[in-house]
Amino acid sequence: MPAEPAITFHAVARFPRGFRCASRNVGLKADAPDLVLFTSEVDASAAAVFTRNLFPGAPVVLGRETIKGGRLRGIVANSKVSNVATGDAGLQNAKRMAAAAAKELGTSADRMLVSSTGVIGVQLPIERIETGLSGIATDLQDDPLVGAQAIMTTDTRPKTLSTSVGDATITWVAKGAGMIEPNMATMLAYIFTDADLPAATLDGMLRAAARVSFNMLSVDSDTSTSDTCAILANGLAGEVDTKAFSDALIAGCIRMAEMLARDGEGATRLLRICVRGAKTATDARRIAKSLVNSPLVKTMVHGADPNVGRILMAVGKCFDATVVPAKTSASINGLEVVKNGMRADFSDQSARATLATDPVDIIVDLGVGGETATAFGCDLSRGYIEENAAYYST
Amino acid sequence: MPAEPAITFHAVARFPRGFRCASRNVGLKADAPDLVLFTSEVDASAAAVFTRNLFPGAPVVLGRETIKGGRLRGIVANSKVSNVATGDAGLQNAKRMAAAAAKELGTSADRMLVSSTGVIGVQLPIERIETGLSGIATDLQDDPLVGAQAIMTTDTRPKTLSTSVGDATITWVAKGAGMIEPNMATMLAYIFTDADLPAATLDGMLRAAARVSFNMLSVDSDTSTSDTCAILANGLAGEVDTKAFSDALIAGCIRMAEMLARDGEGATRLLRICVRGAKTATDARRIAKSLVNSPLVKTMVHGADPNVGRILMAVGKCFDATVVPAKTSASINGLEVVKNGMRADFSDQSARATLATDPVDIIVDLGVGGETATAFGCDLSRGYIEENAAYYST
Repeated sequence: MPAEPAITFHAVARFPRGFRCASRNVGLKADAPDLVLFTSEVDASAAAVFTRNLFPGAPVVLGRETIKGGRLRGIVANSKVSNVATGDAGLQNAKRMAAAAAKELGTSADRMLVSSTGVIGVQLPIERIETGLSGIATDLQDDPLVGAQAIMTTDTRPKTLSTSVGDATITWVAKGAGMIEPNMATMLAYIFTDADLPAATLDGMLRAAARVSFNMLSVDSDTSTSDTCAILANGLAGEVDTKAFSDALIAGCIRMAEMLARDGEGATRLLRICVRGAKTATDARRIAKSLVNSPLVKTMVHGADPNVGRILMAVGKCFDATVVPAKTSASINGLEVVKNGMRADFSDQSARATLATDPVDIIVDLGVGGETATAFGCDLSRGYIEENAAYYST
Repeated sequence: MPAEPAITFHAVARFPRGFRCASRNVGLKADAPDLVLFTSEVDASAAAVFTRNLFPGAPVVLGRETIKGGRLRGIVANSKVSNVATGDAGLQNAKRMAAAAAKELGTSADRMLVSSTGVIGVQLPIERIETGLSGIATDLQDDPLVGAQAIMTTDTRPKTLSTSVGDATITWVAKGAGMIEPNMATMLAYIFTDADLPAATLDGMLRAAARVSFNMLSVDSDTSTSDTCAILANGLAGEVDTKAFSDALIAGCIRMAEMLARDGEGATRLLRICVRGAKTATDARRIAKSLVNSPLVKTMVHGADPNVGRILMAVGKCFDATVVPAKTSASINGLEVVKNGMRADFSDQSARATLATDPVDIIVDLGVGGETATAFGCDLSRGYIEENAAYYST
């Protein structure tokens, strides 16, 4: 669980042909890299999905226009300041950021996707970013980890992943950590490939993959105002089997969603909720999200405390779903804990043991249909409180 | 804020004429009272609202039948074990509990409302409860605090409240703390009055009062499987002005909701979110709930960290609401922090100071209509994690 195609990921992530990145510190963070440029040596077909938050950041507003062209040369991103709730000045700054990156790469601004992530409501120091971008092309290198490090905020580790599809490579670079309940794509996730695929095909594949991965990921039920999932395909490896490519894309997006969940703010363990036997796909997704977001389920996992009634509570608060208590069962890492809507016969000791492992896979079988959904999350710890009670000030 | 009628509460809560209660320890808790009987010396008109959770506890299933009669002689409740997810045996135990209490009071079981609160999925030790009820009528006394203490779970203090309406008294006895996102009544709240009001009138008044109080209360977005809000009117004070009674009922329910929120698990401060200028009442309620449930807003309050962009994030994640960023403003205890959808001009120091007070009143003005709603909640602290990572085991 979950049902992923059997995809092998590279031991060390690498870029597809023609992709490189460079990063700098321009003083937004104390000394870690906070500005990054990703680029393809030729224009790439591209698709993207953005946050559904009604206060989208300026880069999201601009990005929605940019992606209509279906072609990108690169992505420019900064961390620490999100350029959200910044009005017209913020939009002008996002455009200046695109223009500066485009100039550096000898392309036009409408071929650059812009992202900013960090604190909301603070203007970007755009001059520092423009200065930082000047000459950055001389630093371009082959390691996607360089880019992943530069977009980190509260992440404890950079996230990269790559796999092969025939002669082509797919590479994921992402950041996550908090304010994560994507509903469309609420983190930064960039996917690079040298496969040759048109933008419309990429768009369909990306939406299908995001639906079962990033859109089923929730660290804290809060939906970011900034974030973006984009895919760039520069075609340098030629055509690929689209079914194989789509399977690899889904598998990698699920794996990346799990990596983001496991590194959620304060998280100590990955929590996967699989809901089976639902009457409708909507019920399955809603109930899986209800469990993965429940503070009481999350703290139960954190404390490895076998308070399994909370699983039923979190199912039952989905008032509009079709739920028949007597048909409901549940297991934790294979240990049956609920049977026919009642506590099953298990020892507290065995439940404590299985709740203390990583990952924790909770399967709920509703027994009323054939629909399934899996949600990805993490436990809720003191660490989440500590990070978020002083995020702005530190 | 919120707009309450000007109602004065008694310095020390007392029962209306004819109401008394008694409590015992029957070994569910180590030594604190865990069983309570509330009774009126004559039958009372009664109304109740129950949790909407799809896994209602046996007492809720039974209570929905009992309340159809519109008459109650009393309420019997235990804490520590909730009698939820306990199947037919649980329902039989709830009926035995009603019968034992009825026998003690010389009435019939259909005049007794039963409540159980505590861990889910464990059978009630019904013999101990029956033994505990035997002879308890000799202990009946005038102090509602005795009853409030016996229904406490993770509450740090008992909750009682009373006020006068003409010659009549209204008295609230409640418990709360966690698994609180009522959507109908997700805690135990009992309201006693000696006013003379028919059950149908009580029912309408109770629903109207719960809508703006208990149903706008959320400690953690989780909806309990157990809980119940009931009102008993024994008529011993005669008729009252119904408008004055309804105003007092609403004011007391709001006050009690605030008391429950302030004593939420791990809470250090009361958080009130007032949404104004919404296009629809549904939008106002949904956005107020989104803010009061947002872990990032709650941790911002806990840390008094002026990360006010999170307010916009939590508004903006209500995808279906009518929100116009440029018309949105917000204040914290009167300090304007968002203006026209952008960060207003304020110092971090002033925001820190106002976020550190109790209560924290956040007002969001959407500027697109005339509807208003207020939600009640609390900050999110390490204490919530500590209590809930080991609730079952301690």
